[in-house]
Amino acid sequence: MPPEALRRSRVNDLLTSTDLNRDVLVKGWVRTRRGNKYVQFIALNDGSCLATLQVVADLSKFSEESLKDITTGASVAVRGQLVASQGKGQAVEVQAEEITVLGTADPETYPLQKRGSDQKGISLEALRDIAHLRPRTNTFGAVLRIRHALAFAIHQYFNEHGFYYVHTPIITGSDAEGAGQMFRVTTLPPEHPPRTADGSVDFAEDFFGKQTNLTVSGQLEGELAAMALGQVYTFGPTFRAENSNTARHLAEFWMVEPEMAFYDLPDNMDLAEDFLQSLVRYALQHCAADLQFLHDTYDKELLGRLQFVVDNQFQRLTYTEAVEILKTAKQKFEFPVDWGTDLQSEHERYLVEKHFKKPVILTNYPKDIKAFYMKLDDDGRTVRAMDVLFPGIGEIIGGSQREEDLGKLEARMAEMHVPADELWWYLDTRRFGTVPHSGFGLGFERLVLFVTGMGNIRDVIPFPRYPKKAEF
Amino acid sequence: MPPEALRRSRVNDLLTSTDLNRDVLVKGWVRTRRGNKYVQFIALNDGSCLATLQVVADLSKFSEESLKDITTGASVAVRGQLVASQGKGQAVEVQAEEITVLGTADPETYPLQKRGSDQKGISLEALRDIAHLRPRTNTFGAVLRIRHALAFAIHQYFNEHGFYYVHTPIITGSDAEGAGQMFRVTTLPPEHPPRTADGSVDFAEDFFGKQTNLTVSGQLEGELAAMALGQVYTFGPTFRAENSNTARHLAEFWMVEPEMAFYDLPDNMDLAEDFLQSLVRYALQHCAADLQFLHDTYDKELLGRLQFVVDNQFQRLTYTEAVEILKTAKQKFEFPVDWGTDLQSEHERYLVEKHFKKPVILTNYPKDIKAFYMKLDDDGRTVRAMDVLFPGIGEIIGGSQREEDLGKLEARMAEMHVPADELWWYLDTRRFGTVPHSGFGLGFERLVLFVTGMGNIRDVIPFPRYPKKAEF
Repeated sequence: MPPEALRRSRVNDLLTSTDLNRDVLVKGWVRTRRGNKYVQFIALNDGSCLATLQVVADLSKFSEESLKDITTGASVAVRGQLVASQGKGQAVEVQAEEITVLGTADPETYPLQKRGSDQKGISLEALRDIAHLRPRTNTFGAVLRIRHALAFAIHQYFNEHGFYYVHTPIITGSDAEGAGQMFRVTTLPPEHPPRTADGSVDFAEDFFGKQTNLTVSGQLEGELAAMALGQVYTFGPTFRAENSNTARHLAEFWMVEPEMAFYDLPDNMDLAEDFLQSLVRYALQHCAADLQFLHDTYDKELLGRLQFVVDNQFQRLTYTEAVEILKTAKQKFEFPVDWGTDLQSEHERYLVEKHFKKPVILTNYPKDIKAFYMKLDDDGRTVRAMDVLFPGIGEIIGGSQREEDLGKLEARMAEMHVPADELWWYLDTRRFGTVPHSGFGLGFERLVLFVTGMGNIRDVIPFPRYPKKAEF
Repeated sequence: MPPEALRRSRVNDLLTSTDLNRDVLVKGWVRTRRGNKYVQFIALNDGSCLATLQVVADLSKFSEESLKDITTGASVAVRGQLVASQGKGQAVEVQAEEITVLGTADPETYPLQKRGSDQKGISLEALRDIAHLRPRTNTFGAVLRIRHALAFAIHQYFNEHGFYYVHTPIITGSDAEGAGQMFRVTTLPPEHPPRTADGSVDFAEDFFGKQTNLTVSGQLEGELAAMALGQVYTFGPTFRAENSNTARHLAEFWMVEPEMAFYDLPDNMDLAEDFLQSLVRYALQHCAADLQFLHDTYDKELLGRLQFVVDNQFQRLTYTEAVEILKTAKQKFEFPVDWGTDLQSEHERYLVEKHFKKPVILTNYPKDIKAFYMKLDDDGRTVRAMDVLFPGIGEIIGGSQREEDLGKLEARMAEMHVPADELWWYLDTRRFGTVPHSGFGLGFERLVLFVTGMGNIRDVIPFPRYPKKAEF
């Protein structure tokens, strides 16, 4: 029977199959080939899982010459018998009857040749320069499968809980939220843009008739939708043009932002806690092999840290209470703690890892260090903000109850120099049928970073964008 | 019992509840209030479904004065008894014990006041100018819930079929695909950008160290991921800076692009057909009330058209065969048909609606009207392209088997003036372990347009972007 008449099987299906001693067709990429003059063993990966399938080529059937192109990175189609493995380390293997090389990978030039497709021997940093090939390594295969699982778990969680997915705009005409430096989006000719009588660039001639930027958050538009659909979430790319070369910042990253009508701050905290625990639990259940690999390879505390989040009820306390704890802590901090200043990562991690030994939700921050749209507390000094703090990572979620009172919101905007005329549509939600509501933002890469245990945010997104880097 | 001690119920849960004669708390927005001097009926919507919940306020318990702010668009919290309804049109209603107005909506200024929250009396076009409020209408509530359901169905379908979701970059350093005009992304000062010695703008000084644009497609990067993970898909925003003011074009829209290693063209067609039928079937099952509303209000053929797609196997034929059919058709076409020219919407719809009376997949188009990356047929004249054509809408999916042969791909790129040096990373996939592979693109708004039966693409995305329009 020619190979094409058989349906291709995926490696992960074969590895868990109990239907043995049958003809199978499998296609994938060679991770390694080794053996002796009687038999050759080919480790085949097709991306469906971390593990490779062992293909056994008996040299009484295959000439050395016919196998010479079966090198690391080459692609092959293999027809053969799926049988119980005689070797250690795998339950099944394929006794090859026919092997076709689909594409070669010249050992002299293939960048992942030297150490198989594992990252060993090539630093994670060097792999960023070949981001088009790095998904072929065990590490990035694992990270990308976990990233997928988390994205799916997010959609599934919200769908099951009656939330609607809303696509908020990427190109925005307002820069009102002031969450950071923005990228300008334009079709004006860069060399000689049209100019007005006074010599300034005439953005009325630009594609959208005014200056436009890439969004820094979908929250404000999410609120608009929540005022009609009740419970919504966004999940889309957001952008910051900050010239920061750190392991925690990207110029382009994905945000998840639920927004809920009729939710007060405790409701918001309940949701954030249940949501995060569900996501981590999903990853533990669905990505066991990939997580185990990352745990073994990079971070022996990874699985413990994930279980810690699932097992512990989050500790809730106010910012003011946290400051008291930090001020009396025996630990020396690099940055001093004082009421009114933002907490540093070292403070957040102390609370989570040393003091409470569980995830923490801090609430009611001083209004001066939080955004204009957060609901003012009755004391006039704090707002109904909440930050969820995780071990190893610090803040993973930031959110708040929103100010639903038109007058108070306008006053805060004036105080903070947020232009009310640009946000007329946002204010309309408070003008017509306003309701108490809340929401939060989860940086998706922060979540992937936490769940995979990777150290640099550039290694948890397929094609990272940062200063001077927009390759691929 | 004060209202706050009860947990809020969502309207769609109450409407389908059989647990009657109990205290409930419900919150939402008033659609209408009507009645007589003995009793007032408030139609309450909370976005959880199209239908409203009837709240009955007995005027022996409530003064006219206390109800005066309960106007269309106002938000209220209602505590009362859930009982079987005595009226027609609903199974249950709430006999109000306590009504709290959360937010008013001044009838003099509330834009959706006149005709309740339905679109009647306000044109769809006028509603685009108040896109921040239009989700509160029946029409846009229905469209956005269906949009959510389709997005979720897409993620669920791929997850169940072993595909991994890959976030391809939004900001791209290459403009090589040539799919249309692009938006430039920059942080250079527009008035006086830095210039090189020869006076041209110095993009080396820009954020990414070169000129960057918003992506027009995630396909090329999707292919990179498929060469490692096997089966992947993208679902993200894409952009075209085309100055076209039509009912079919947006400057910002969402694309779904699966990419599969080891898939040939027939595999690709099988996937596209099963995928589309699954999505439409999901909508029919999960959005019955919203679809019925759109069917009744806008398009009496909508449900029939959806069922038509689910029930009929798609007709597959080559472009060449289709041209023969069109040339001998009795119907007069505005545009002539000749081998080598692209088909117009009138031709596509003739094939689907008149000739075959089923969805159609056209394959093997002339190479000169298709993109450089499509696999050349043996005849050297056509490529392994496929377009899926739907009733009422024409092309809904475009895809192809990809050219996996490095030499042939390079030759095509040279022929079509695609710069090979910019796409070195794309060519690497053909250099190292190349495999036959395929993929396609589904414009998400095209799908939502088809499933909702709406006439204008600006009405199936929450905040549409088009020339001179980037409000909200």
